[in-house]
Formats: sequence, C-alpha cells, structure tokens
Amino acid sequence: MKTKKILLAHGAGGKLSHDLVHRLFLPYFDNDLLRQMDDSAVFSSEKAGRLAFTTDSFVVKPLFFPGGDIGRLAICGTVNDLAMAGAKPLGLSAAFIIEEGFPEETLEKILQSMQEAAREAQVKIVTGDTKVVEKGAAEGLFITTAGVGIVPEGVEIQSRKARPGDRIILSGFIGEHEVAVLIARGEFSIKGEVKSDCAPLNGLVEMMLETVPELHSLRDPTRGGMATVLWEIANASGVGMVAREELIPVKSEVRGVCELLGFDPYFLANEGKLIAICPEGAADRLVLRMRSHPLGKDAVIIGQVSGENPGRVLLQTRIGGHRILEPLSGEQFPRIC
Amino acid sequence: MKTKKILLAHGAGGKLSHDLVHRLFLPYFDNDLLRQMDDSAVFSSEKAGRLAFTTDSFVVKPLFFPGGDIGRLAICGTVNDLAMAGAKPLGLSAAFIIEEGFPEETLEKILQSMQEAAREAQVKIVTGDTKVVEKGAAEGLFITTAGVGIVPEGVEIQSRKARPGDRIILSGFIGEHEVAVLIARGEFSIKGEVKSDCAPLNGLVEMMLETVPELHSLRDPTRGGMATVLWEIANASGVGMVAREELIPVKSEVRGVCELLGFDPYFLANEGKLIAICPEGAADRLVLRMRSHPLGKDAVIIGQVSGENPGRVLLQTRIGGHRILEPLSGEQFPRIC
Repeated sequence: MKTKKILLAHGAGGKLSHDLVHRLFLPYFDNDLLRQMDDSAVFSSEKAGRLAFTTDSFVVKPLFFPGGDIGRLAICGTVNDLAMAGAKPLGLSAAFIIEEGFPEETLEKILQSMQEAAREAQVKIVTGDTKVVEKGAAEGLFITTAGVGIVPEGVEIQSRKARPGDRIILSGFIGEHEVAVLIARGEFSIKGEVKSDCAPLNGLVEMMLETVPELHSLRDPTRGGMATVLWEIANASGVGMVAREELIPVKSEVRGVCELLGFDPYFLANEGKLIAICPEGAADRLVLRMRSHPLGKDAVIIGQVSGENPGRVLLQTRIGGHRILEPLSGEQFPRIC
Repeated sequence: MKTKKILLAHGAGGKLSHDLVHRLFLPYFDNDLLRQMDDSAVFSSEKAGRLAFTTDSFVVKPLFFPGGDIGRLAICGTVNDLAMAGAKPLGLSAAFIIEEGFPEETLEKILQSMQEAAREAQVKIVTGDTKVVEKGAAEGLFITTAGVGIVPEGVEIQSRKARPGDRIILSGFIGEHEVAVLIARGEFSIKGEVKSDCAPLNGLVEMMLETVPELHSLRDPTRGGMATVLWEIANASGVGMVAREELIPVKSEVRGVCELLGFDPYFLANEGKLIAICPEGAADRLVLRMRSHPLGKDAVIIGQVSGENPGRVLLQTRIGGHRILEPLSGEQFPRIC
C-alpha cells in the first residue's frame, strides 16, 4: 500500500483542505466549538475575571523522542505556560505548518498524541489552522499552540513577586527532556534510557494554589533551564537567589550524560517541571502537598530568595564554595525544544 | 558594515535571546503586558461575556509584496478572524519561526509593519515566542498569530445562520491580494500595479454591528476566495446561494491577470474584504453605512440566500446562464497566503 502524503493542495482551502480537516483533525480533536469550523471559536467565560494568554512554536527535532513527541510537547508547553500564571485553561489553538510530502500516518500519530495530552490536561483544542509549504520550505512539521485561561480570584503570580526569605521549590528531577531529545538526535553517539518529562502541570498547580493561593512566582524551566529561570526571577524581582547544589535533584543517567559531554544540568530544558517561589511560612506545607501529586512527588526546597546580590543566582556547591549561575549567551548544544 | 544576522543562539533562551527580544521586538510591540515577559500575559476582561479565540500561521512567499508583507498579513489575518465573529480584539500573540542567518534588518522591517498594522487595528501584541531553526529547516520566516476578543452582548454571528431571503453583501473589490502576491513571486512574468488589499476589518465590522446587531454571518474570503466562503456558509446553514456575476466588483487589472492565466477571480484570496449575510430588511441600510467607511466604500449586495439547492452556490452569469461554484479540490496556482 502506498503511503499517503500531505500535498500542497491540502493547504489551499479547497475540498482537499476540508477533507484533511474532517478526516484527520476532527476525529482527534472533536468538540462542539471546533466542529462549527468558523474563523474564531466563541465560548463563554462564566464570570468576569482576568484572562491569561500565551503562545509557543514547537520546532523539535526529531519529531518523536522517548517520553513524547512534538504533539505532546505542543499541548503541554502551552498548558504549562497558562498554569505558570495560575490560570485554568479555557481552550487551546493549534496551528500546523506542514512540509509537502509529509506522511499522513506520521501526522496522525502526532494528532493522537495531542489528543492524549489534551485529555490528561483536561483541555480542548477549540480552533486551529493548517498550512502546507513546498518541499524543502520547512523541515517536516512545526506546531504553534496558543492558550487562553482564566486566573482565579486572589491568585496573583508573577516573576517580579519574589521576596527575600521566600523559599525556592523545585517540583522534581531536572534535565530529562533535553537529554532525551539529545540522545534521540543521535549526534553524540551516546545511548541511554532517559525519557522526556513532558507533562501538563495544570493539575499540580491547581492543587498547589488550593494549599497556598498567595504563591508569589511560578515558572517552568524550559529553554535555558533552571538557572535561566532563577536568573529571570531574580532580575524581575530585584532579589538574589541562593540554591544548594546538593538539594537539586538530578538523576544519575542525566548526570552521566552531562559529565560525558561537559554540559551543566542546570541549563537543560525541562517540559514537566516547575519552580515555585513561596512565602517562607507556607513552603513546607506546599512541598508536602505537592508530593501527593504524581508530577510533584519529588518536590523539594532547593534554596531561598535573598536580599543580597540582586539579580544574581548563587549556587552553593557540595564542597562549600559558591558559583554564580548566569544565563548562557547562546546554547550548550543544538537546540531541541 | 556587515549585515547582522539571526543566529541559532538567538533562539536558545539565553542572553542572546533576551537581547534580541529587548533590542528588536519590545521597541515595536512595547506595552505593559508584554514588558512583564512572563510565560502568559494576564489581563482583565471587564465583564463576563463570550470570548472569541482564533489562530493562523502565515507562510507567504515572498515576504514582501505590493500593499503589505508577512507582518501586516499576520496582524490583519487574526484581527479579521476575530472580527468575523463580531469580536473586539483584547490582545494578540505572535510566534516567530526564524531561519538561522535571516537578516536582522529584514526582521525589523517586518516588526515595524506589524506595529503599524496593530495601530491601525488598535490592538496590542501581549505575548509572543521566538524560535530559530537551522539554516534550511525553514524558508526565511513563518509567523503564527493568535487572538482573543470579546463578543458584545446580543451579537451572534455564525456561518450556520444564513436564512432564505437574506442578502449577500460583499465589502469591495475581490482578488487583489492573491494577484499582488502572484505578481511579486515573479513566476508568471506578468507585471502589474495591483496592490494587496490587506487591512484590519474590525473597525468596519464594529460600525456594521452598530447598524445591524442581528447580522447573521460574516466571513473574510481568504484562502479559497469568495466562492469557497459562500459554499461553506451554504453548507453550514443548509441553504442555497445565488449571486449575480455582474454585481461582483472585480478591478480590470485583476480581471486581466485572470484572463491571461486562466484563473477565476471568485477563488482568489483577499485579506481586507468581507462577506456579510444580512436579513433582507436591514441590507440596504447596512450597505449605505458600510460605504461611509474607507474599507467598505465599494460595498454592494451581490445576491441572496435561497431555500432551493441547499449547499450550492449559483452564479447568474452576464449572459443569463447559471454556473455552479464549487470549492476547488486543490489550488489554482502556487499557494500564497
């Protein structure tokens, strides 16, 4: 049987476009809003409130890697960006840029994976777009998702709200997503069992906000990793950050790959982890609650916010020294997220 | 002076990413929400209501064409999709996929053009993303915008609401965008003075809804053109459409290019036109009001909705015959929008 491929005509807005959407996309994403196929999805927001709005393009290579694929990433990435504002997702959009000749079967696998991730996150894809570009004009597939969410009353999470004395909480082990993709790229001829941590964090965040609605800051350490996120919070808030190296959870497989290649796990991308800046008095309670959630079971306080050295992230090393973590100017290795 | 180029490192989330955003993007898109640089923009929606949400990827080639560029298109396209739901835009997102080596100067021109279009539409870009892919992995630049808007109370515009007797209103001349891009591609060695009609329609729609809040359907005939949009409304509403060829405004330059190449103007993409399905009794009033707006000055009733031939679009030709307009299966020529 010949493999069906995506044609330029599938993106031209005619019958083949209609057919592609109805045959491939709707079966996976079906819901009342999407089915109307109008230019915008229109939905009710039950009460007046603050909206969160975010977007991300996904260009990961390879498209499939242990623990996930570009589709799972596109859903989790945007759900997580909403969650980092404390927002409950109202709906997602998904825009596909597909290279002419892309196998339909592969697209379908990715759609299926998006459906599964959306179910896990309990979110719907309410609107979308498909463009097909000429062979060679894009490398396979890019997905851009956007999300709208509602921020519950009383929740006011911002990167600029970290205060001296606040505790820095990390939800689990770091570096797995980037190492998994790195191994899947096959460029370094290393092998390993590391799986991406790619997961939707909105359930965990909802539970955290039930426990500590006054949480100060939340960020998911994706591109640039933990070090960059701490640096950004430190700079947005005009505070210093002090983290203790021995408290930061890094799995031995990740550590091994880092040692082999000379990389630093603190700069590796994660797709299912978060960093919370929490008032001191509530931090222990919050960590305990987080540990009752599968995605927070390894949650730990890794350090605290300081009034000294504003804009700096200090790492207290195992041997008792200090190291300043600054964002890299570029990248450690080929970009993967 | 050497031309500055976008590097892979600009997309890695480190200092160079930070620098690119602060040096290039923020000066053009600056506003309170974007400046916070958190993962989501959070803004108030003054009262409870219905939200409209839409997205589109823009992959136009060439990036610049008479009357616009990919940046203007990305703003207008999403503003117009919101407007077609009767929604007033609350904010836009913009996600950039940039090929390594792309000239910074060109990017800056495009950002400037986005800024201008956003001003015309009175909308802000409140959140965004930038990814840089390896040379050859994308053709220059793709932009994906999404938009959130609020639908005023009493407005209920849907493609499935066309009723027999309703009038079909077209806001102006058709085919200009696609012909302008086609000429700019230089593949057909034709020359011409045709400019893209690319424009934000939200102001016109706001005025239309003041006059006729009970408007039934609104669509902007982009990919697939007027014929495809009429066919989609006919099918969503289970009605027929009858349009009179002699009433449909097509400029002679557009007609000339169509005749030369054997294309049909009814299938050509527009980026600043709309089709409104309006209750019979309000149609003349609506057209008069539209003509007082620069983007509706050539508005005209081109036909009406019929109870016969559901799902069909009939064109009454100049010579008194009938022609059925069906969406093309693919495209008339290389995709351009």
